[in-house]
Amino acid sequence: MIVVMEPGAGEEQVQAVVDRIKAAGLNTHISVGVSRTVIGVVGDDRTKHVLRESLERTPGVERVVAILQPFKLVSREFIPLDTTVAVGPAAVGGARIAVMAGPCSVESREQIIAAADGVKAAGAAVLRGGAFKPRTSPYSFQGLEEEGLRLLAEARERTGLPVVTEAMDASQVELVARYADVVQIGARNMQNYVLLREAGRAKRPVLLKRGPSATLEELLLAAEYILNEGNYQVMLCERGIRGFNGHTRYTLDLSAVPVLKRLTHLPVVVDPSHGTGKWRYVAPMALAAVAAGADGLLIEVHPDPANALSDGPQSLSVENFAALMASLRPVAAAIGREL
Amino acid sequence: MIVVMEPGAGEEQVQAVVDRIKAAGLNTHISVGVSRTVIGVVGDDRTKHVLRESLERTPGVERVVAILQPFKLVSREFIPLDTTVAVGPAAVGGARIAVMAGPCSVESREQIIAAADGVKAAGAAVLRGGAFKPRTSPYSFQGLEEEGLRLLAEARERTGLPVVTEAMDASQVELVARYADVVQIGARNMQNYVLLREAGRAKRPVLLKRGPSATLEELLLAAEYILNEGNYQVMLCERGIRGFNGHTRYTLDLSAVPVLKRLTHLPVVVDPSHGTGKWRYVAPMALAAVAAGADGLLIEVHPDPANALSDGPQSLSVENFAALMASLRPVAAAIGREL
Amino acid sequence: MIVVMEPGAGEEQVQAVVDRIKAAGLNTHISVGVSRTVIGVVGDDRTKHVLRESLERTPGVERVVAILQPFKLVSREFIPLDTTVAVGPAAVGGARIAVMAGPCSVESREQIIAAADGVKAAGAAVLRGGAFKPRTSPYSFQGLEEEGLRLLAEARERTGLPVVTEAMDASQVELVARYADVVQIGARNMQNYVLLREAGRAKRPVLLKRGPSATLEELLLAAEYILNEGNYQVMLCERGIRGFNGHTRYTLDLSAVPVLKRLTHLPVVVDPSHGTGKWRYVAPMALAAVAAGADGLLIEVHPDPANALSDGPQSLSVENFAALMASLRPVAAAIGREL
Amino acid sequence: MIVVMEPGAGEEQVQAVVDRIKAAGLNTHISVGVSRTVIGVVGDDRTKHVLRESLERTPGVERVVAILQPFKLVSREFIPLDTTVAVGPAAVGGARIAVMAGPCSVESREQIIAAADGVKAAGAAVLRGGAFKPRTSPYSFQGLEEEGLRLLAEARERTGLPVVTEAMDASQVELVARYADVVQIGARNMQNYVLLREAGRAKRPVLLKRGPSATLEELLLAAEYILNEGNYQVMLCERGIRGFNGHTRYTLDLSAVPVLKRLTHLPVVVDPSHGTGKWRYVAPMALAAVAAGADGLLIEVHPDPANALSDGPQSLSVENFAALMASLRPVAAAIGREL
Repeated sequence: MIVVMEPGAGEEQVQAVVDRIKAAGLNTHISVGVSRTVIGVVGDDRTKHVLRESLERTPGVERVVAILQPFKLVSREFIPLDTTVAVGPAAVGGARIAVMAGPCSVESREQIIAAADGVKAAGAAVLRGGAFKPRTSPYSFQGLEEEGLRLLAEARERTGLPVVTEAMDASQVELVARYADVVQIGARNMQNYVLLREAGRAKRPVLLKRGPSATLEELLLAAEYILNEGNYQVMLCERGIRGFNGHTRYTLDLSAVPVLKRLTHLPVVVDPSHGTGKWRYVAPMALAAVAAGADGLLIEVHPDPANALSDGPQSLSVENFAALMASLRPVAAAIGREL
Repeated sequence: MIVVMEPGAGEEQVQAVVDRIKAAGLNTHISVGVSRTVIGVVGDDRTKHVLRESLERTPGVERVVAILQPFKLVSREFIPLDTTVAVGPAAVGGARIAVMAGPCSVESREQIIAAADGVKAAGAAVLRGGAFKPRTSPYSFQGLEEEGLRLLAEARERTGLPVVTEAMDASQVELVARYADVVQIGARNMQNYVLLREAGRAKRPVLLKRGPSATLEELLLAAEYILNEGNYQVMLCERGIRGFNGHTRYTLDLSAVPVLKRLTHLPVVVDPSHGTGKWRYVAPMALAAVAAGADGLLIEVHPDPANALSDGPQSLSVENFAALMASLRPVAAAIGREL
Repeated sequence: MIVVMEPGAGEEQVQAVVDRIKAAGLNTHISVGVSRTVIGVVGDDRTKHVLRESLERTPGVERVVAILQPFKLVSREFIPLDTTVAVGPAAVGGARIAVMAGPCSVESREQIIAAADGVKAAGAAVLRGGAFKPRTSPYSFQGLEEEGLRLLAEARERTGLPVVTEAMDASQVELVARYADVVQIGARNMQNYVLLREAGRAKRPVLLKRGPSATLEELLLAAEYILNEGNYQVMLCERGIRGFNGHTRYTLDLSAVPVLKRLTHLPVVVDPSHGTGKWRYVAPMALAAVAAGADGLLIEVHPDPANALSDGPQSLSVENFAALMASLRPVAAAIGREL
Repeated sequence: MIVVMEPGAGEEQVQAVVDRIKAAGLNTHISVGVSRTVIGVVGDDRTKHVLRESLERTPGVERVVAILQPFKLVSREFIPLDTTVAVGPAAVGGARIAVMAGPCSVESREQIIAAADGVKAAGAAVLRGGAFKPRTSPYSFQGLEEEGLRLLAEARERTGLPVVTEAMDASQVELVARYADVVQIGARNMQNYVLLREAGRAKRPVLLKRGPSATLEELLLAAEYILNEGNYQVMLCERGIRGFNGHTRYTLDLSAVPVLKRLTHLPVVVDPSHGTGKWRYVAPMALAAVAAGADGLLIEVHPDPANALSDGPQSLSVENFAALMASLRPVAAAIGREL
């Protein structure tokens, strides 16, 4: 349920509405737009029902609207303005497109420093890198774990780049949040609800990746679990859905970008590295994602892709990444944004 | 790597091979067939390599074979004979097809007792029911949690039916294993590797459901995580993959049954309730699953489907379940099995 | 629109309703059930609208019902009873399950005669074989064309088995119908509407295969094109949909069987050979199809699969086909049908 | 098989190779690059084999290479340079991106003239419009047929825009080619091989749409049917594949663009109107397609989308199309192309 204030409603009128909502045991989320304020009402649906009539009669209230979508807090109806997620000194969801780049896995001090220096020099806004690695086979390299987190933090000290890295389990969230600037939830864990809830209680922004067979409604409801715990700093990430086409590893569903931007206020990020699985197709799909309206990109960059311990075939070299950044800038400018 | 013994090899020859493997710091898994014994070698691949030549020269050894599949312990090459999983007094993977039935969620004492009595009377071998419920929306009923586990245990006391129920997170495995006979890992958690590892350390059989966009190789590698921790009592469950056809909720991929039976020694169970999402199609698909060679069925039965707190539309009433059991028996007999 | 007569309505009352419908320039399709008669009204929707009120007042009429589905003539509402399609001496859609077997392509006189003799001896009801072959590559064997039709006709003379074979284009329908007993429309042509219309004007039953990405509604609407031209002798065939699982060529969607049986009166046939693409999985999926309620099977059998000019890997040898027939009989009996 | 000439090979050396190939009863396709010439050899594979050794010894020949892909004539190996398809005064496949716009169906003289004037004014290069319409239901509007073709020709006279329109059946190709500049083959007919062959014999360029479940290899082999009849003027069109996401009608697979550009020399066009099924998402996906490297766009524009006889929900108004063209220009410029 949202309360739409009249265009000229004053601050004290907004406050009176908020007080009335809180008195009923509910919470609020306030969106201040250019012309008017919208107050989202958070809490038990039955209480809302009772409160509704009283709110409609409160001065300054134009109308009270029920949210019909199954997802509430993440919906554009609930928060009409774009959410901007602060990631260290960067912001995701505004005019500037945030490029998050780095290796699939942190492998060594040398590797992560080389990668961080390289992506920083090329203009990345955020450093990505995996310390806990979800791997299809138990016999594959599983990540450096806490040592990897420490190396990421060291790379941040050196470059100033904020860090995004994955937590694979609720029990890892606190640890990851201690070292990283953004907690990533991977595609395989998109519906790991215990993990989602824990991320909702973390004091860090969350990057939530879409599962390979998740509908957009399922993705939004997964994000709803996080917001429902009080954490509104969530980014959604399209990273390819399961398809039948052998030429790419997944089918990158770029139409998810405009559809999500319409349904939700949360920023939308695209991962063309996992989405295609081949470095050769990363650049065209990154350009396409920006043209489609993505707020950020997640790109795998490795100082030596041929010898990467994971995802080498889809990683760009530092040189190729720099070339991609150069080609992204005019496309971003062409749609009125910047990198 | 497996060691295939000669048809006439004696027990002491087998023991000599085992001793040699253990001396190299590796472990073994022994399959005794009618005509010969096969010894699976478990452990570090590099050590195996060194050991191989010496094993090939050991008396009684016919040949040593590397396993080329990415999955090892779950493969038919590693264990040629069908694995039988003991579930309380029942067994899954032998001539008798195990029907596991019960409500989606445990909702109340009355409900689970009525369901347990009903499915027992109709001939079910195992009682299913959810205490921890993974739900797409945070606003849906999330299960009775430990109280639900207690009620399931009570229903077992009453009916003698062993119980299968889901653990949604590694932290819940120990609790679930305390009350239940089988720990279920749901489709959304098929690649939750922290959970898989914890289930591999549990002293309970595991029912692992296929994710809706998982390939069979991914399913087998997920099972490999469990076996790799030492727990070989694993059942695989086909429950429908994501499709484009609006008439069913998922597309039940019954060809997974013969393909899995060929690739792995683990028993294969089919869940036609989730696979179709509509009670009307549960019976024909259950019959088809048995005809295709499934070792078990997982079927949602609710004493009052119209008022179920979850998955009502796909639940059979107790009466319909009894009718299904009656129609399953001749089909099982027709392929040389029984219920 | 259908007119449901009262249980006791007499023949002359039915005739009066039919006369009234024909007087309005529309046509009828009469279904005589055990307890009552249902009259389907075929023709322009606007005329129906006008006629409706008058029909509702006609003696013996219980009610007049609009058909809400987008497909009309193929729907169960329009014809409540199962349609039986006569294929030479065989019938598809009754208690007896029709097995249609033979090679993918007619390759030579020797080959088709050996196949026909083999499948006849094993109990097949219909001989299948391609003369015009739709092949993915222009460089693959494209079929013997009219010579292939002649050989099929010769095999029919010899064995008494009616023949089903594909027409790839509207221009071939007349020729195929001259030689064959059933005109097959392949999966790639399911939405070739010029071909569908031509098949609707043929004096032969039609076997319509589902396209690999067709929804069941699209399949039913494709069949509607045929019925709409006056040919009600149509069989639908599930032959696998596009999936992501590399272990089979397509994903055989057996849930299509009960869903279609509910939505339409037309018989439903399953093709496990194309559906799996591997001979090894044909038998279990054939058994499953029968258990799920299929009215017929379409199975590729080749006297020498290893040297087949097309689809060898999915073809059964004559011996394996005979073994399959033997295993199908008890399953058919178990569900109250026969082969 | 291709013959790669040495960098300095002279014209007479090329001619000698061609003569030798023709003497063997085979044909050639010559690609003259900046630094060297490549001669594709067309014809029977066994003859090629014999010829190979002799060609390798011919002066000026650097090497003879077999084409390993299942598709030959369409492959980049066979013709290394981009093919440019001439469409009236326009060209598809060069630096200029060709926008083909117009209504789904030609409905009336007024409608097609208004659409043609509108898209011409906004800068479209080609007029699209359907005269023969493949419709899922036999009860939907099926197109004006030859009258529609006449109206399209009239719109061309008036605006100078060349016309692309669909032939649904081999029997329509000659008629369509008489009126139109490009013969379109629709997604449902992508594997209608009789139609593909007939289009291969037409003296018009062909626009071939990808079927909704076709792999890129199947699309390329379908194009191979056309080239194999001698018509090399073929454009490929991505128009969305079957997916599971209800928010768009199909899943537009933009990664097909860079993959196809790598595998084939043929130009690649994207249809974001069918690909999304909703006018609201046409503009972002059109921008993304251009950024991904598409050589052309196919866009549905209707003077009055709300009253369109087909595909209204996915059609842009003339005003929205003009706005899209304005936003496309800077994106095209950003990647070094123009509209």
